[in-house]
Amino acid sequence: MPRALLLVCDGLADRPVRELGGRTPLEAARTPNLDALADSGITGIADPVAPGVRAGSDTSHLAILGYDPLKVYTGRGPFEAAGMGIEVMPGDVAWRCNFASVDERLVVLDRRAGRIQETEPLVEALGSIELPGVEVELRSLGYRCALVFRGEGLSHRVSDTDPHATGVEVAPARPLEPSPEAERTAELLNTFSAMAHRVLEGHEVNRRRAKQGLPVANYLLARGAGVVPELEGFESRYGMRGACIATTAIIKGIARLAGMEVVEAEQDYLDRARQALRVLERCEFLLMNIKEADEAAHDHSPERKVQVIERIDALVGELLEFARDNYLVVMSDHTTACSVGDHCGDTVPVVIAGPEVRRDGVRSFSERACASGGLGRIRGMHIMPILLDLLNRSEKFGA
Amino acid sequence: MPRALLLVCDGLADRPVRELGGRTPLEAARTPNLDALADSGITGIADPVAPGVRAGSDTSHLAILGYDPLKVYTGRGPFEAAGMGIEVMPGDVAWRCNFASVDERLVVLDRRAGRIQETEPLVEALGSIELPGVEVELRSLGYRCALVFRGEGLSHRVSDTDPHATGVEVAPARPLEPSPEAERTAELLNTFSAMAHRVLEGHEVNRRRAKQGLPVANYLLARGAGVVPELEGFESRYGMRGACIATTAIIKGIARLAGMEVVEAEQDYLDRARQALRVLERCEFLLMNIKEADEAAHDHSPERKVQVIERIDALVGELLEFARDNYLVVMSDHTTACSVGDHCGDTVPVVIAGPEVRRDGVRSFSERACASGGLGRIRGMHIMPILLDLLNRSEKFGA
Repeated sequence: MPRALLLVCDGLADRPVRELGGRTPLEAARTPNLDALADSGITGIADPVAPGVRAGSDTSHLAILGYDPLKVYTGRGPFEAAGMGIEVMPGDVAWRCNFASVDERLVVLDRRAGRIQETEPLVEALGSIELPGVEVELRSLGYRCALVFRGEGLSHRVSDTDPHATGVEVAPARPLEPSPEAERTAELLNTFSAMAHRVLEGHEVNRRRAKQGLPVANYLLARGAGVVPELEGFESRYGMRGACIATTAIIKGIARLAGMEVVEAEQDYLDRARQALRVLERCEFLLMNIKEADEAAHDHSPERKVQVIERIDALVGELLEFARDNYLVVMSDHTTACSVGDHCGDTVPVVIAGPEVRRDGVRSFSERACASGGLGRIRGMHIMPILLDLLNRSEKFGA
Repeated sequence: MPRALLLVCDGLADRPVRELGGRTPLEAARTPNLDALADSGITGIADPVAPGVRAGSDTSHLAILGYDPLKVYTGRGPFEAAGMGIEVMPGDVAWRCNFASVDERLVVLDRRAGRIQETEPLVEALGSIELPGVEVELRSLGYRCALVFRGEGLSHRVSDTDPHATGVEVAPARPLEPSPEAERTAELLNTFSAMAHRVLEGHEVNRRRAKQGLPVANYLLARGAGVVPELEGFESRYGMRGACIATTAIIKGIARLAGMEVVEAEQDYLDRARQALRVLERCEFLLMNIKEADEAAHDHSPERKVQVIERIDALVGELLEFARDNYLVVMSDHTTACSVGDHCGDTVPVVIAGPEVRRDGVRSFSERACASGGLGRIRGMHIMPILLDLLNRSEKFGA
């Protein structure tokens, strides 16, 4: 039976760029393999979540995997925590945190504490903190850290303690709704933050950094509170073993929460293509996320984005043969405009290649070329049903 | 005022077929009349229920008539029973049944009892069976039979007694949910099945068949339990008298439950076209279903499907003049792929011709040509609102 590879190029789609003569980076790049794929496949455009909605990578990937983000997504924290390897459980409340430097009045001096790497001893020390009726879990990766509260009577409806700026004070968490759960969670987070500040201030890692003139990691700024959703397992939902190759914690976290196998990505793109084909020998479905085009657009760099796209095109070249007897979907999870340096709500191009698609007249893969394709305009949530149908794995509704 | 003919060609849409040089049967067939219709009309593609969903003819026709199948469809039984002429009522639980042959250990030998035709005397004899608190109705057409339970405290959430295979035992009905209603219904169905078995075993029709060496019809296998929905009447909903010309019980049943007039179809396609025009002299709306393209695809026969499509095209030729001053919609209710031999979730082509449509640039009627039409990608549930609008029969929403 045919298998499926869903290649999501993060932030691939863009708006017309003046420096590129009004072309998008995808239109400006030399992409013979993506164009061959478009020529042999059926194309279209997709609203990751809904028309005009500026999707995050998290909400978009949830939708593309068939999980309605409007139902399961409350904040980024849970997916980040799962991606960092914490065994989160439905109902847990989780935050993304940064180790930060604050002064004695709790004014933020550096939101990333000089991008400190040595945070494992700090996390270990923070493990001694106990809160009434709540189990606390922490995991760090450099200056980034995930924080999880587990227990009864919690709510994710609390504000960030991260002021999202330097030169201003840490923001005490406030309840965002008038419920006892939100009030209690805000109090617990404030208590935890104060206790963590004391533990971190006295820690030898920070004493050493202070002596070396490095920013100290003496505060944990929390943001993106969310409650861990109960996602129906990918395999039970689709009858396929699903795997994920990604480099970012958030995508890995979504895959983990969906019960998919998470595979550490090879560094080199061509190696990664071959890795994908190996994984597809044991799984019927693979989600592969490639991050770098998004990063180039966040950095306002259309030239770098064009280069990344040409490297992605080479990777796609390694997959063309796979797409003869199997299904290969290439799409973007959202538009990231170089002009804006952030995500936009514009549509993204989609191509589906494989043995039984209704090949259309579109011959190149771009935001505009795909707009006249045979798929028309679909949504992220439609990708899995369309793919399952092509794989002949759908249940019939009716008779 | 203009009238409307909605011609649903069952299973017309297909995937590219290798034996047809990568064309679909609709693309391969010579269809001057359908192409003329596409040329003069507005075209598009439709998801009968939703993108990727493999619709049955029942769920798709409900959607196309504007009744949300996710709300009104619980199983095929009620529509089949109504189509066979039983006066079902909202709340009734109904099954599709087969007269079958079983041995003394209730192992199924023939699921259709040699396609027995003489079942009316059997149904009459079964009429003597009484169940506590439940009224039973039966109607047969050859080896097929509809069974209806009417009464309080029933549920359609019971499993089939039909094992869907020969060489295995009849499957006792089980409740599919832990409710007293489902348990009671399963018990009642099992009691009925055992009593029916005794009545049928001793029946003279079967004694005669046994002597002649023919398979006996000594068991009634039930499947597709559903509860009869309350459909708002077609006329009160749309302000038009609606009629239906169809050959299959399920489509007739849907039309009956919607309160439409059901007209027995003429055998010959050209006669049927003229019949449609006569019916449209007394009704403002006619649904006409043509079954044979679907059957050819179920039989994996693209050549036969092409021939059926060319006969449909001749029928459409008789309707072109009607479409000058009235509205003619031609579409498929779902894709039936010759390669798969069953329904698929791919989109279907749609054309609407009539005096005030925004004619688009599409000049042939096919799955792919219509994908670039002026309707874009719509859903089955959108057909009636679009048609009502063109007929200038819609209520204004707002002022």
